[in-house]
Order: sequence, then C-alpha cells, then structure tokens
Amino acid sequence: VPERVVSINGDLVPESRAVVSYRDRGFRHGDAAFDTLRTFHHELFRLEQHLDRLDRSLRYIGIDPGVDRRSLVEQMTGLVRTNAALLEPEDDYWVTIRVSRGEDPPTRGQTPAGQPTIVISCDPLPFERFADMYLDGVRLLTTSVRRTPPECLDPRAKLSNYLNQIMADFEAKEIDPSARPLMLDTEGNLAESSGANFFLVRDGRVLTPPEEFVLGGISRAATLELARGLGIPAEEHRLTLFDVYTADEAFLTATSFCLMPVSKVNRWALRSCPGPVVLRLTAAWSELVGVDIVQQAQRIARALVPA
Amino acid sequence: VPERVVSINGDLVPESRAVVSYRDRGFRHGDAAFDTLRTFHHELFRLEQHLDRLDRSLRYIGIDPGVDRRSLVEQMTGLVRTNAALLEPEDDYWVTIRVSRGEDPPTRGQTPAGQPTIVISCDPLPFERFADMYLDGVRLLTTSVRRTPPECLDPRAKLSNYLNQIMADFEAKEIDPSARPLMLDTEGNLAESSGANFFLVRDGRVLTPPEEFVLGGISRAATLELARGLGIPAEEHRLTLFDVYTADEAFLTATSFCLMPVSKVNRWALRSCPGPVVLRLTAAWSELVGVDIVQQAQRIARALVPA
Amino acid sequence: VPERVVSINGDLVPESRAVVSYRDRGFRHGDAAFDTLRTFHHELFRLEQHLDRLDRSLRYIGIDPGVDRRSLVEQMTGLVRTNAALLEPEDDYWVTIRVSRGEDPPTRGQTPAGQPTIVISCDPLPFERFADMYLDGVRLLTTSVRRTPPECLDPRAKLSNYLNQIMADFEAKEIDPSARPLMLDTEGNLAESSGANFFLVRDGRVLTPPEEFVLGGISRAATLELARGLGIPAEEHRLTLFDVYTADEAFLTATSFCLMPVSKVNRWALRSCPGPVVLRLTAAWSELVGVDIVQQAQRIARALVPA
Amino acid sequence: VPERVVSINGDLVPESRAVVSYRDRGFRHGDAAFDTLRTFHHELFRLEQHLDRLDRSLRYIGIDPGVDRRSLVEQMTGLVRTNAALLEPEDDYWVTIRVSRGEDPPTRGQTPAGQPTIVISCDPLPFERFADMYLDGVRLLTTSVRRTPPECLDPRAKLSNYLNQIMADFEAKEIDPSARPLMLDTEGNLAESSGANFFLVRDGRVLTPPEEFVLGGISRAATLELARGLGIPAEEHRLTLFDVYTADEAFLTATSFCLMPVSKVNRWALRSCPGPVVLRLTAAWSELVGVDIVQQAQRIARALVPA
Amino acid sequence: VPERVVSINGDLVPESRAVVSYRDRGFRHGDAAFDTLRTFHHELFRLEQHLDRLDRSLRYIGIDPGVDRRSLVEQMTGLVRTNAALLEPEDDYWVTIRVSRGEDPPTRGQTPAGQPTIVISCDPLPFERFADMYLDGVRLLTTSVRRTPPECLDPRAKLSNYLNQIMADFEAKEIDPSARPLMLDTEGNLAESSGANFFLVRDGRVLTPPEEFVLGGISRAATLELARGLGIPAEEHRLTLFDVYTADEAFLTATSFCLMPVSKVNRWALRSCPGPVVLRLTAAWSELVGVDIVQQAQRIARALVPA
Amino acid sequence: VPERVVSINGDLVPESRAVVSYRDRGFRHGDAAFDTLRTFHHELFRLEQHLDRLDRSLRYIGIDPGVDRRSLVEQMTGLVRTNAALLEPEDDYWVTIRVSRGEDPPTRGQTPAGQPTIVISCDPLPFERFADMYLDGVRLLTTSVRRTPPECLDPRAKLSNYLNQIMADFEAKEIDPSARPLMLDTEGNLAESSGANFFLVRDGRVLTPPEEFVLGGISRAATLELARGLGIPAEEHRLTLFDVYTADEAFLTATSFCLMPVSKVNRWALRSCPGPVVLRLTAAWSELVGVDIVQQAQRIARALVPA
Repeated sequence: VPERVVSINGDLVPESRAVVSYRDRGFRHGDAAFDTLRTFHHELFRLEQHLDRLDRSLRYIGIDPGVDRRSLVEQMTGLVRTNAALLEPEDDYWVTIRVSRGEDPPTRGQTPAGQPTIVISCDPLPFERFADMYLDGVRLLTTSVRRTPPECLDPRAKLSNYLNQIMADFEAKEIDPSARPLMLDTEGNLAESSGANFFLVRDGRVLTPPEEFVLGGISRAATLELARGLGIPAEEHRLTLFDVYTADEAFLTATSFCLMPVSKVNRWALRSCPGPVVLRLTAAWSELVGVDIVQQAQRIARALVPA
Repeated sequence: VPERVVSINGDLVPESRAVVSYRDRGFRHGDAAFDTLRTFHHELFRLEQHLDRLDRSLRYIGIDPGVDRRSLVEQMTGLVRTNAALLEPEDDYWVTIRVSRGEDPPTRGQTPAGQPTIVISCDPLPFERFADMYLDGVRLLTTSVRRTPPECLDPRAKLSNYLNQIMADFEAKEIDPSARPLMLDTEGNLAESSGANFFLVRDGRVLTPPEEFVLGGISRAATLELARGLGIPAEEHRLTLFDVYTADEAFLTATSFCLMPVSKVNRWALRSCPGPVVLRLTAAWSELVGVDIVQQAQRIARALVPA
Repeated sequence: VPERVVSINGDLVPESRAVVSYRDRGFRHGDAAFDTLRTFHHELFRLEQHLDRLDRSLRYIGIDPGVDRRSLVEQMTGLVRTNAALLEPEDDYWVTIRVSRGEDPPTRGQTPAGQPTIVISCDPLPFERFADMYLDGVRLLTTSVRRTPPECLDPRAKLSNYLNQIMADFEAKEIDPSARPLMLDTEGNLAESSGANFFLVRDGRVLTPPEEFVLGGISRAATLELARGLGIPAEEHRLTLFDVYTADEAFLTATSFCLMPVSKVNRWALRSCPGPVVLRLTAAWSELVGVDIVQQAQRIARALVPA
Repeated sequence: VPERVVSINGDLVPESRAVVSYRDRGFRHGDAAFDTLRTFHHELFRLEQHLDRLDRSLRYIGIDPGVDRRSLVEQMTGLVRTNAALLEPEDDYWVTIRVSRGEDPPTRGQTPAGQPTIVISCDPLPFERFADMYLDGVRLLTTSVRRTPPECLDPRAKLSNYLNQIMADFEAKEIDPSARPLMLDTEGNLAESSGANFFLVRDGRVLTPPEEFVLGGISRAATLELARGLGIPAEEHRLTLFDVYTADEAFLTATSFCLMPVSKVNRWALRSCPGPVVLRLTAAWSELVGVDIVQQAQRIARALVPA
Repeated sequence: VPERVVSINGDLVPESRAVVSYRDRGFRHGDAAFDTLRTFHHELFRLEQHLDRLDRSLRYIGIDPGVDRRSLVEQMTGLVRTNAALLEPEDDYWVTIRVSRGEDPPTRGQTPAGQPTIVISCDPLPFERFADMYLDGVRLLTTSVRRTPPECLDPRAKLSNYLNQIMADFEAKEIDPSARPLMLDTEGNLAESSGANFFLVRDGRVLTPPEEFVLGGISRAATLELARGLGIPAEEHRLTLFDVYTADEAFLTATSFCLMPVSKVNRWALRSCPGPVVLRLTAAWSELVGVDIVQQAQRIARALVPA
Repeated sequence: VPERVVSINGDLVPESRAVVSYRDRGFRHGDAAFDTLRTFHHELFRLEQHLDRLDRSLRYIGIDPGVDRRSLVEQMTGLVRTNAALLEPEDDYWVTIRVSRGEDPPTRGQTPAGQPTIVISCDPLPFERFADMYLDGVRLLTTSVRRTPPECLDPRAKLSNYLNQIMADFEAKEIDPSARPLMLDTEGNLAESSGANFFLVRDGRVLTPPEEFVLGGISRAATLELARGLGIPAEEHRLTLFDVYTADEAFLTATSFCLMPVSKVNRWALRSCPGPVVLRLTAAWSELVGVDIVQQAQRIARALVPA
C-alpha cells in the first residue's frame, strides 16, 4: 500500500517511520508552536497568513526556526503535491506544521542546544466527524476549566501546550462525545472552543470575543471579512453566557470545517440552526474557496461509510 | 563507545535510536505527565513516593498507563541497573519517566486511540551546573510571567506542558544565565521556581508556600521532615516578596540538587548564604541519603573540567 | 382528604390555602432568609443550631423577625406535632422556616414598611430521589457558573436568592437529571453543591472546603464531629479539582439525606463508592440520630412505588 | 373605597386579595424575572422594548412564560386601562410584570412542576420621593458591596434575586435615607445604582459604563439616543471613581424618573447640578414623552402633601 | 514658650524650625518608611519590636538608614527624655520615626544620591479624639476603596505612601467625622482600618484578619498575647462582613489607644459595646503597661477642655 | 555662584534654602499631587493641559489648592523667566509643580488643618541620561510588581505616592542601570513604564494601552495627534506581552524626552530601533515644538562631558 510522507526537517519520510527523538523538547515539554491549514482543490488556503501566525507564535516563545519563509513555503507546497497523488480529486488535506525547539543536549559537557525540529504532515480531512453538523449543528458545553490567562501563557500563540484545552474537551466529550467545549476566560467572559472560534448572531449583527484573549483564527478573520462583504455588521465584543442565551444563532469557525452552526449551548437551543446568517456565510465561504464546503464534506463522509 | 539505553514501552533501546512517532500526543500537545527521580549509590530515592505522584498526575489528565505498579518499578530499577555499568561508582543518575497518551489515530476510519507511550531514561546528574552554588548560592529573579492557576491547569500535577515555566525561565536566564525564576501566582503570592520549590527561613522558622498552588515536591516533603526532625519549626504559609526581603535565609529544593541556598532575590541579598539553617539541613540531607551531597557534586564537577 | 397545615405568622393554614401577598418582598426580590431541618422520630434535629444559623442569616440582611427564640421553637415543634398525624410512624418530615422582610408599603403615603412574613412548613422527605444513591452514589458535574463571592452576597448566609445555585443546578441536571452541580468559587477552588456540602477522603483524612466561602452546613459540622469521634482526621482545606481526581472517596452532606457517597465527578469515577470511610460515617450518623438512615430511605421509597 | 386590581395569570384580582402560594418558587428562591414600565398619558412607554428585555431575562434563567407576546400586551394594556379609572388624568402608573417559575410540586409523587406565575400590577408613581431631586439632585454613595459578576449571575438579566442591590441600598440609605448606592463591579469599575443606570458628563461628552456589566436600561438607551439627537457625543466607556471626581455633571436614568441629576458622590459635589447637559436632556425627555416630567412630578407631589 | 524638639539626622531642632529640603524624596514621592510608638510613664513601649518592624519596612523598599540600632535607640530615648520636660507626669508621648531615601541629586552631573533623612518627633497623644470612645465605641464604615494588594505594594510594610488609606479615611469621615474606615482587600475580605487593626469576638473567640494582607501591628500582637494569657482563644482568620454582622463584639488596636471597642459597622450595631471580652482585654492592657489606659485618656482629655 | 530659585507658596527661595516642614503631609504621607512640564525655547509646553491634569489629580484626592488658575500660570511662567537667566539659550528646563495638603495641625487643640503647600521648581533637563537612547533605544524589563489598580488608587492621577513605580524601577535598574520597567496591571495587561507611556507599532498601526489604567500623558496625547496627522492609524488597545514580542517597533513617551525608541523588552529585540514610524514621529515632534529634540539632547549632553 502506498503511504503518505511526512517532512522532517526537509526530509520526506513515510508516515510509519516518521519519528522524533525522545529528547526532543516538543515531546518533553510541549516546547513547540504549530499551525494547521487545509487545502481547497489541493491548494493551501491562506498560506501566508498561517505562516505569519506561526511566526508570531514562534517569536513569542523565542524559537528561531532557522529556515526562511520561501523555503517553508516550498516544503509545504511540495509535500502537499507529493501526497496529493494519494487523494481523490475532490478530497482535500489538513496540513500541520510544527516547530519544536529541538533536542535537549546531554546533561554533561558543552554540547550546544539542538536545532529546531520542523515536522510537516498531511492528513485527510475528518469529514465524517462534522459532515452532518452542517445541517444539525454542533452542541457546545461550557466547562469549569477556564482558558489560561495571557499573564501565564498567551492564548493568541498557537502552542503545543494543549492540556488546558484538552481538559476542557474531555469535560465536554464525557457528557456527549459529539459535543465541544465552550471555554470562558478567568473573568467569566466567553473565550473560545478547543481549536475553534465562537461567534453569535443577534439582531442581525455578528459578534465574536475580542482577539485579545483568544487565538486569532484565520477562519475567524475570513468570516468577519465575508460578513462585512455581505453587509452584515460584524465586530469583536466582550460576551458572556447571557449573550448566548439571548442570541438568534451561533457558530464556530475553524480551519477544518470553515464554519459550523451551533445547535445548543448547555440546555439552551439556539433560536435557529442553521439560521439565515449562518447559511449566507456558508454560501459565501463556498464561493470564496471555490468548493461547496457542505457538499464536499457530505459526499466524502458518505463514501467512507461501508455499504 | 558503549551507550546508555532507554526504555520505551518496556523495550531497551540505545539513546541515539530511542524515538517516538511524530503522531505521539506527547510531541503534538505535550499531552503527557512525567516524574523525575535521582539515585544515591545507584538506588532510586523514594521511588514509591514518586510513582504515587506520577499516578496522581496521570489521573488528573485521565491517562491510564496500562501497566501496574510492580511492573513500573521493575522497569525503572532494571534500567538503572543496566545503565549503572556506564557510571563511576560515586556518580549517580537522574531518572525520568514520562507517560504520554500515545499516538493519535488516523483522521479517518475507526482505528481506536493508541496506547500510552512510556519512556524511561537515565541521565548523568548535571553536577557542573550547580556544584558551586552549594557555597555561593543561586540567584533568583521574579518574573512578570505568573504560574498558571489551578482552574486552568493545576500546578500540582507534573505535566509535559512546560511553556509557562519555560517562559519564566527565559525571563530570568536572559538577565543572568545562572539565575532561576521565582514565579508568583496570579494573586501575587510566591509560588515556585521552575522545577524547584522555594523556602525561606525567618526567626528560626522554615516557611514554604502551601502545596495548594505549587507542585508538591518529594524533596520539599523530605526537607520539611528533616527540619522537624532537627527541631526546626517548618510549615506552609502564604508568602509574598515582603517575606523574602525580610528573611534571614532562603533555599530551593529539587530532585537533582536536593537543597540549594539562595544568595539573592532581585536586588536583595539574603542576610546569610549559606546560612546556618541551610547548612544544618544540607548535613541532614547527606545523612538521610548516605552521600555527602556537596562533596559528590563538587568532586564530579571538578573531574569533568578539562585540565 | 386531610391536609397538612402551614404556619404563616403563627396561624395554621391548610397548605392549599397558604398564601402570601404579591407585594411580599420575598416574592418580589427574594428578600428573605430561610433554614431547612429534618426530623428523626418526628423530633427536629439540632433545632437550636438551625435557629442560630437562621439568626445569622437574618442579621446579615438586616431583618428582625420580631419574634423571640422560644416562640419560634414552639411554633416549629407545634407544627411538626400537628402534621405528624399525617405521617407513618417510621417516616419523617423536612421542615422549612422562611422569614421575608414582609410587604412593600404602598408607593404613596406614609404607610410604614410591613412586618416580616414567617412561613413554616413540613414536607415528607423525598426519599425516592436519593434512596438508591446511598448504594450507587451521586454523580457530580462541575459547572461554568461560579459561586457568588462574599463581597457580592456572602455564601454563608442561607438566603432566598437562589438563582446562582439554580443556574448551576440546571447546568448539571440538563446533562444528567440525577446529577448535582459541584460549584467552584470565583478563584477556581471547590465551593459546594447546590444545597449540600462537599467532602473528600484521601489517605484516610476527611477534607472539606473552608467555611469561609460556603454555607456552614449543620450536617457538615455534625459529620466533622462524627469523623473526629471515630479517630478519622477531618479538617477544612482549600481544594481544587486536582484533589477530587486524586481522592479515594467523596461525599455530600445535607439536611435531607445526611451524608451521600459520590460516585463520579465529571469523567472521574471515585476509587470506591461507597468507600470504607463513607460507610463508617453513615453508620455513625445512624447511631447519632437513632435511625438507620439508609434503611429508612429505602423502605419508604419502595413503599411509594406503585405495584 | 374602590381598589386597583392585579392580574394574576390573567385573572383580575383586587390588590388586597392578590396572593401567591407559599410554594411559589418566586417566594421561595426569588426564582423569577420581572420588568418595570411606566405610563405617560396612561400609555405604556416602550412596551415592546420592555417585553423584549423580559424575554431575554426569562430565557437566561430558562423560564418559558407559556403565553405569547400578543396576549401579554393585551393583559398589560387591559390592566392599565382598568386601573386608569382610579387615577387623576395627569397622573401616571408604574407597572410591573413578574414571571416566576411557578409552584414547587409536592416532594413525593410524580406531580410535574407547576406553570409559571405571571403577576402584573400598577402602582402610582412615587413622585414624592424624587420630585425635589430634579432640582436638588440625588446624592450617591459608593458601597463596599460589589455588583455580582456575570459568571455568577449576569447583571444584564432583571431578576427577582435583588439582595445584592438591597445590601448596597442599605449601606447607602443608613448613612443618608435619601441617598442611593453607586455600585462598583468586582474589578473596581463603576457599574450601576440599585435599579438605575449611571451617567457622567465630561468636556461635553456623555459617558456611561458598558452594558456588558450592567442592566441595559430602556431609559438608558433612550437617553443615549436623545443625547445623540441633540448632537452631544454619547458612548459607553469603562469608568472609575476618578472619572466621577473629575466630571462636570452626573445623572441617573430609570423608568420611574427618566433622568435625575446627581448632586454629590461621596464627598465630591459635582461641578454643576443640574448642569446644562442634564437640563437639555430633561427637556428632550419631556418632549419625547409629551409630558413635562419635572412639572408632573412636582405638581402631584405637592398635591399629596397634607395642607 | 518652650518648644518641643525634633531630631533630624541626629540634630535636635525646635519643631517650628524642623524642615526638610523640597528635594527630599520623602516629600517628592512618599519614598520613606516610618514607625509610630507611644510611651507609658515616659518610656517607649516595645521599642525593639517597633525598630524590628521599621527595619523590615526599610529593607522592603531598599533603604539602608546608615545608622545602627544602638544609635537609633539612643536618639529616640534621648529625644523622649528631652521633650519629657514639657509633659505632665501623667501624660505620654506619641513618637514617630521616619526614614526617607534622602534628597534627589541634581539632574545633571555626577553627584551621588543623598543620604537618608531620619526624622524623630514627639507629639502629645490625642486623647481628646478617642477618650470617650473607650465607653461609646467607635463607628466603622466600609469603603469602596480597597487595600492595595501585596503585588503592588505590600500592606505589611509601614510606608509614607498613605493615599490609599487617606482616600478610605475621607470616604468614612465625610459621612461621620468621628468614624473610621474598615477597608477590604481586593478579594473582598476584611483587611484593616486606616492605621489600626480590626478584631472581632464570636462565641468567646477573638479573631483578626491574617497578617499576610495587613500591617502586623505591635498592639495587635500584644492583644493576641494578652487574650491567650487570659485563656481566650485568639487566632488569625480570613473574615468577611458576614463575620462582622454576626459577631458579638468588635474592636480596633493601634499604638495610640491600644484597644478600642467598635460600636457599629455600617448599619449593624455590635451586640455589646464595650463587651465583656473588650473589657477584660482593656484591663489586661492597663496591667501590662502599668497605666489605666482609659482613665489616663479621660483625665487628660477633660483637662484640655476649656471650662 | 548664582543659584536657581524655587517658588514655595509664591515666595521665591534659593534652591539650597527651599524647605518644607517635617509636619508637611507631603513629607509624612506622600499626600500630594504634582505635574511635570518642560520648556521649549524657554516656554512651557502645553501648560494649560498640564494644569488641567493637575486639577484632576487634586480633585481626586480632595485638595483645593486655594489659588486660581491665572495665578498658577503667572507663578510658573514667572519662575521660568527668572531661572532662565541661568540657562544657555539652547537649553531647556524641566518644571515641577507639587501641591501637598499642607502641615498636619498639632495633635491637641483646635488648630485647623494647614493650607496646601505649593512648590514649583526648575531643573535642567537630564539630557545626559537619554541623549544616546534616541539612536540606541531604551531597554525595558517587565517586573513582578504590578501597577496599582484603580479601586486602590487610580493610576490616572499623578500623585506623590510613587513607591509602586519605584519598586518596579528598582527591579529593572538592578538588572541594568539604564533600563526602565514595563509594568503590567493586576490582570496582566501592559500598563506603563515608571513616568512614561508605552506604545508599539504593528503593521503600520500605533497602539497604546487604554487611558483607563494608566496616566493620561500629555506627551502620549500629543503623539497620538501627531500620528493621526501623519496618516498613521493610532488607537488605544488592551495589550499583552504577546503584542510586544510580535511588534515591529516600540517606544515610550514622556515629558522630558518626548518620544524614545525601545530597543528591547526582556530578551526580545524589537524588529527595528529606531524604526521608520519612530523616526517620522520624532521628526513630527521636533517640528511641533520648534526644536530638533534629538540634536538638542545630544549637543547639550556632549557639552557636559568633561574633555
């Protein structure tokens, strides 16, 4: 069986043999930053914006990747091209680039610290997990776990220290395996889901928590642009659960699914799901990327189900 | 050259070939817990206490290591025995056991989540880094980075999400490469250094921040016991920088160096360093473990310096 | 059908005709304090302690009930005696006394504010709701809703402003109708359930959050006494979810069920439920009150189920 | 003497016989939401906006009133029409609608929870309490009691849990019976008075705390509109006591008095009271509602004073 | 008229000519620490403890007074001896020692920073202000101003940055010129009055907020000792207003008046004032210092009133 | 040698004899407000704005200076004119006006509180300290000391309680004598340096923390105006260290140096220093004030260095 390849510091290695040292600080301490993209028609979407964000994350934790932008672009597009051979034409990849600080040197002697480890990999998009949700919506559950405050580790950097979100994800998933968490910040304002930004619609306006305390999602930015392009007022606002319980619609944005309606938050069903604003934005997304995102997800998800 | 071996899920592998998959959640998310021990006379010190703590850390993040206590003890003692052949008789090992949640399954299909990855490794103790500090003391610098609050990720679990402490460590090390951070919690109380507990001595009493907001160090517990054994009142207390600036002595405890006097915190030199209480506790430690901890560090550190 | 009576300002009224004015500040603003007791063998348990607590709650919100202690005791014991005729000999009552600030005067004119409204009522204990839980334990779910801080309204007063706990209760019950909330305070420490105190057992010690931020339950105090009487160390301690996830047993205390084992908190099953300490404390409770509390609940609950 | 009637679940009942069960959750727990309106020329002002807000409050605490909007409008306007017969032509009503979750079912058996209790009532506006303050201003006193944070119970919902504001009101009133509290939020920002919104004027700009942490008053919204209509910049802004002490004017808004100048906050007298901006806004209010609000209050208040 | 003298850097200067440069950092920035003592029978009470505390305050802000302990003791006792000539035998002094960082050097050139300025002065104790309060008690008012948190400036150091307490004092005094503030910390716990510590008595126990967030008063420590000597349990405890409203007695301690009963906090009158515990402690104080503190204050206060 | 004069309550006194009483509340408690200006061509820059700010600071702490605006303007301009004789034509003064609450009255008797003390003084600008930094930039270090929150003492008032900033300044200066602190607020947001406002530049936009939690600098306001005049978007925004680490440029503004590039914050060197935006703003400043601010500082600084 042919196998996808992974780029490790520029070398292409089959997935099953793609490894890092047990001394890698990524493995030891989560001492790494990453970013996640997806392709449309096998092309990486908003690659420059994602690399800008990766650059900010790396600067924040003080890792110099040691590779220039052009080289990163080439490695990433090259990898996608190579792995595209294993993909149906209408299917697409989820692409991750991760940069760790490299291996810890031996505890004795003068060996300098290692070079960063750069791993780029492609995964088929998990359409099965979310295809139905474009119609049914996703259920969110608020958690007792709060999003880490900026004075401890800034949520705006995308880092391999994910246990805060994982703890929240478990708190939600244990209750409903298809649910996702809706995390609050330490002051009780809405922050974000795990790996996805939260939006709500009220009186025809689109609102999302300010970027100050959440990851500045690329899909989040694209959605704000699309809304404004459609003449829908869209802005950042401090929000609480009161806003959710009195909203008309709500949705998440993320790289993998672009935009996903929310059906319910805790015991409150949203007034409509998918609501009219979500539907307009979904159509705008499909137009922007040249792919009907709902159809693509559903067609491939169905194909995966054994007859 | 003979090489130390590492235990990966029970298999002994030479260090240079000890690897984990790029899909391991330890590498991807820091989704792992760990514990660090050291040997005295090549015997693991307080192994049961360390495994109890590892067990609490794992329970907190919901990882079942899938291996019973006896087996872990055998793997760890076996590994130390094997690697002891590469160690001078008077030298000792730093031993780490790390348990990650294992590999992420493929994004499509029904493959269940992977089994935990258990990595046990031995490193020579870095005596060069701290041998002189038993006499000179270590300098601490408070940082603007605050220790993560329990509602986000509990500091009492020893987890592979170390960027909070790494950011603090960098803030201190950039100023003085031999300094260590003294982190405060989000309310401004003293918490801990990166990987070490903080103590101070005032009016003959030994004080340390309550375990509620810091890692419950095994060396910390041993030091409290030793102090009480010597008739020195020793207790947990909420502390602030005011306590530091008006203290007589201060010290850190950690697995590697046991107990280390502090010379200075920010611009305040402690009244004495090493002070009388630190010296009594250091002697008590040496007696407890059957090794003169200062002499051992200094002898080996000197041997490492090229003539 | 004979009907229970309710005492309204000392008058005995059948339940179906026991009413308060729509102008009562209890109805308008929740401007009232209350306390809840239960009987054993038709005798009110720790009546003086409950009236002391009611007195503190009333002083806090500045309501003078206008009735002395002896009269309250007489009204309450008299009411229980009267209603006892409607109760099986082995059954018992849940008794509530509520004191509101009385009616708002007309908006115009010089009518002074009304006198307090004192309502005392008896309800059969809802054994059906919890009889099985003595064996199976109760499931707790932490909530995003946090317990109101003392600077806003002190949790130590038992007041008719219950929406904070009701919101938490809904967040838990929507997920599992038999679950109860485990609320945190605004700093992320464990506080209490809705109307019940939380305890855990670790290494043979019984721990409960300090009374500073939770209601000082009478059953909580009785349980601490019983534990100490059994030689089990029992103390107040700031606790977080880490303590729960690493505990051996956990339980709730409340007036209605006395003491109830906890089976699970979020996704963590406690190590044993009912565990050995819970069983000893349950036996001690039964001895203290002269009733086998588990048998009573189960016998009556069974009797209620239609054949 | 003819008596006003109250609507209880649609039935018209004389005030003196308008009652709710002692089991009503409104009486037991303050488990209710409400809204307060007033009439001008015996017409309810901004009824739709008030019902929208009531709807948001009810959704937040999860009460479905079980009655549609049209029916509520009819009940309210009908009640005002009925009671108007008891009012002088130039006088007006204060109208309250309150929706509780209804009666608690018996503690045993399968009786489902009760239906919501809807109480609508009319009170003559208490002009005596504030008529003089249009000229003299009202004194505000900051309190140690802080406004409940959204993570505990959101201040944007108008709920029958009023003890937080009552405690603040008492703290102010004990010092000066005609004073009102000025509450801060838990971070020390200005929030609101008890049942009234706070505004200040500085350098010709009108500022009020953001709606995120205070009740979004209908009179507050009307005042912001009126200011903008007059060409006065008016916006939401986080404010502290420093802003008050350096302001030119300050005022409150509320349903009953519309807009009221503030004379003093703690020991600081405002630079002018009533100041020029307050006077312009008062005139604009009078024009908006077609009633000279100051004259109305003063005329009726004088009429009430016994000769 | 003979005039008291002040010691400025060891020089004795008549009060009317005792000055510091306008460049003194004490005047410019409040950049100074101080301590306040009083005499009994013209002897400084607990001088060593006060100088220990001054030393801690100075160390905290990094001022080295440049004078050894013996010399300070001599200067202080010498000054008291000199000024005692102007005092009635039964009268006593309030003595202040203040150490500023000295003069700012010129903005240009290499002049080093100046030497500390040490000012020691004697004032007759203001018995008129508090003599009656031993019988009537003092009224306390909680304030919206909160005590500065340790992460900003530690309340345990006695520093010339007093505006936080002055703002609180004004908030209280504006309402009642004889009242004093009762400040809360930023979490809403009781902290201290301005320049005095707060205690309450409940069920025969004496409680006071922990020294962690308040100045560790010398009179506070003496009172805890005296209570324990009388067999009254006395301990530090986090306290809130709920504790005050449910207390039996309350009192303040300070250098000037030693111990003073509290009559009222906000609208709550304490159950007894002066209560039995306060009376026992007052008697114990008088015995400790060899002066009937109440009689002394009253006798001298009366003597000061013009006939 | 001729000497500069200082104005004390309107009297001109040589600096060496300009003193205040040891009883002055400015010296005792830092109970004073102040403002600092500078001259360009010997004219006070934005005098009215500075006096407006002084007025706000004084109102906040409740000091009435007892002198009208015109008189203050005359005193200040007069003093500058007098002292200008001692200044080279191309040199300029730093001017401070400080208003304390005046002397504490005697502790006994009815003497009323003293009148405010107004001190106005001129200092040569310390060009030596910062002339080189226009080219090299200033290094900032974040501190563990946090800026005092508004509920304790509002940072928007410029007060003589400077120990909070002094503690931060020491924390920075001990590490690097030429560094300055970058303080965070108690929530971990960027606040200000000691006596200077912080700005950063990102993607061509100028950002600075909102005035709500920092002193509203006059130079800060001028810089925002200048930026907007140059077509550079400039706005207030909540900022964290993440913003700093991902910024293109950063700078401080203050009265003395107007605007100063930042080279480094902790271990992060800014991308450019002085960067293009800083250079444009510096040129705009020079044009605004009619002085090449960089040249002036460098010329005078060089002249001061002994050959």
